[in-house]
Amino acid sequence: MKVIDKIDKIREELDGKENVGLVPTMGYLHNGHLSLVEKALNENEIVVVSIFVNPAQFSPGEDFEEYPRDMKRDKEILTDMEVDYIFNPDVEEMYEEGYNTYVEVEELSDPLCGVSRPCFFRGITTVVSKLFNIIQPDRAYFGLKDYQQYVIVNRMVNDLNFSVEIKGVPIVREEDGLAMSSRNRYLNKKEREAATILYRSLNKGKKLIEQGERDAEKIEDIMINMIKEEELARIDYVKVVNPDNLQTIETINNKVLMAEAVFIGETRLVDNMIIDSKKG
Amino acid sequence: MKVIDKIDKIREELDGKENVGLVPTMGYLHNGHLSLVEKALNENEIVVVSIFVNPAQFSPGEDFEEYPRDMKRDKEILTDMEVDYIFNPDVEEMYEEGYNTYVEVEELSDPLCGVSRPCFFRGITTVVSKLFNIIQPDRAYFGLKDYQQYVIVNRMVNDLNFSVEIKGVPIVREEDGLAMSSRNRYLNKKEREAATILYRSLNKGKKLIEQGERDAEKIEDIMINMIKEEELARIDYVKVVNPDNLQTIETINNKVLMAEAVFIGETRLVDNMIIDSKKG
Repeated sequence: MKVIDKIDKIREELDGKENVGLVPTMGYLHNGHLSLVEKALNENEIVVVSIFVNPAQFSPGEDFEEYPRDMKRDKEILTDMEVDYIFNPDVEEMYEEGYNTYVEVEELSDPLCGVSRPCFFRGITTVVSKLFNIIQPDRAYFGLKDYQQYVIVNRMVNDLNFSVEIKGVPIVREEDGLAMSSRNRYLNKKEREAATILYRSLNKGKKLIEQGERDAEKIEDIMINMIKEEELARIDYVKVVNPDNLQTIETINNKVLMAEAVFIGETRLVDNMIIDSKKG
Repeated sequence: MKVIDKIDKIREELDGKENVGLVPTMGYLHNGHLSLVEKALNENEIVVVSIFVNPAQFSPGEDFEEYPRDMKRDKEILTDMEVDYIFNPDVEEMYEEGYNTYVEVEELSDPLCGVSRPCFFRGITTVVSKLFNIIQPDRAYFGLKDYQQYVIVNRMVNDLNFSVEIKGVPIVREEDGLAMSSRNRYLNKKEREAATILYRSLNKGKKLIEQGERDAEKIEDIMINMIKEEELARIDYVKVVNPDNLQTIETINNKVLMAEAVFIGETRLVDNMIIDSKKG
């Protein structure tokens, strides 16, 4: 495995290579990431894992500086998995002085996480565009935990005619249901216990739909009230929406996305679940 | 020569082809375009000329509907020149329902043409990104008549890491100095005569610099007053700026870009000239 930190160098390495898979990450790898890498290894001849904590997707006051990093451990894990390349540029390599270009997906970036994190998706679509142009992968792998990101990246790839196939990979959870996230390390013991409220409330919503409830707002309210009972939790949003366009729905009559962002103490966690009410 | 109107089809045609040059146009070709095509033919094995009147770069009330089109003539010209492909998609092929992604170069898009045409450059950078992803050219050719566009496209290519070389091609002028433009056809006989004021005023600015004038605002004022004497002309802007970042300058001590946009009757024309004061 090679670790490469320069754009020109990774381009040179990949020149003429076919069947390339890209797994874009911010590092501090957990089993969620590893399931993406696993899938990429199964489906491609060459696998590139990018590790880049992307400042453009953090707003002022967010945790860019404190975001957990452990390159040594990440490198060991990816070496063991027989990944071909880690692409690990520094901020100046990706955003040189005078940088001024942004890729934005309108409408889809507005609701859900877009409300409290207005620059977030613009930062993601910009860095993903850059990575696609640098690596020119045939396939790129994204976790479905960030479902809105997955929808937005798909829209972008379609709209801008990138020739890359986007693969969404299911959420990987801890034994108690907490979705894996690099930010889980911020949680102290009490918060770690409280954090299961995200998955539990999603399961509550799921059960309601399975029992025949079709009123989206009613489901949201029940989930919201359940989360409010958890002392350490503070809701950013809890929404039941159309998974294709992320628009609110009144009556559930097909697939729905239940998505939520909840602060546990100071740590903002997201989780989601897709339910097909017809199969319920 | 093949004329292709579908994205999938042109991709299939170009698959595996190397040394591809792209000349993006809105059609209604004039000698300015042909100088781009000529250069592309000299420098590439395969030349694609795109002909697409891009709605995203027209603001409401501008001339998208009336913009001159003559596909039959364009096709004849490009066949004679032995171009390999015309890529001529319709609007629905490029912007399907639900389209929502835009590429924007900040700051550089704000001054000059950006003031009166706020969506213009966003429309250009978006469609050029799409064309780069569809055609994946090695080189792309842009006329220096739209100097701000040239600067912005270069910034975008650099920032988003497109692997395409941008080639700027000098302005081609009519015998009396009017810069060639598809919009010149809007001019009636009197307006056509009046339109030479753009080139004449630029030459006046050039002469002042050559004579040692270094006060940018003074040069602008003299050019503005000269244009105002032309009854049919109405100034959008006349600016003497830094050609790299398009910022206004006070004192000329190096290369400058003199750029102007002037309405002649209803028709908005642009022109520019770069002067190296050190060579003056």
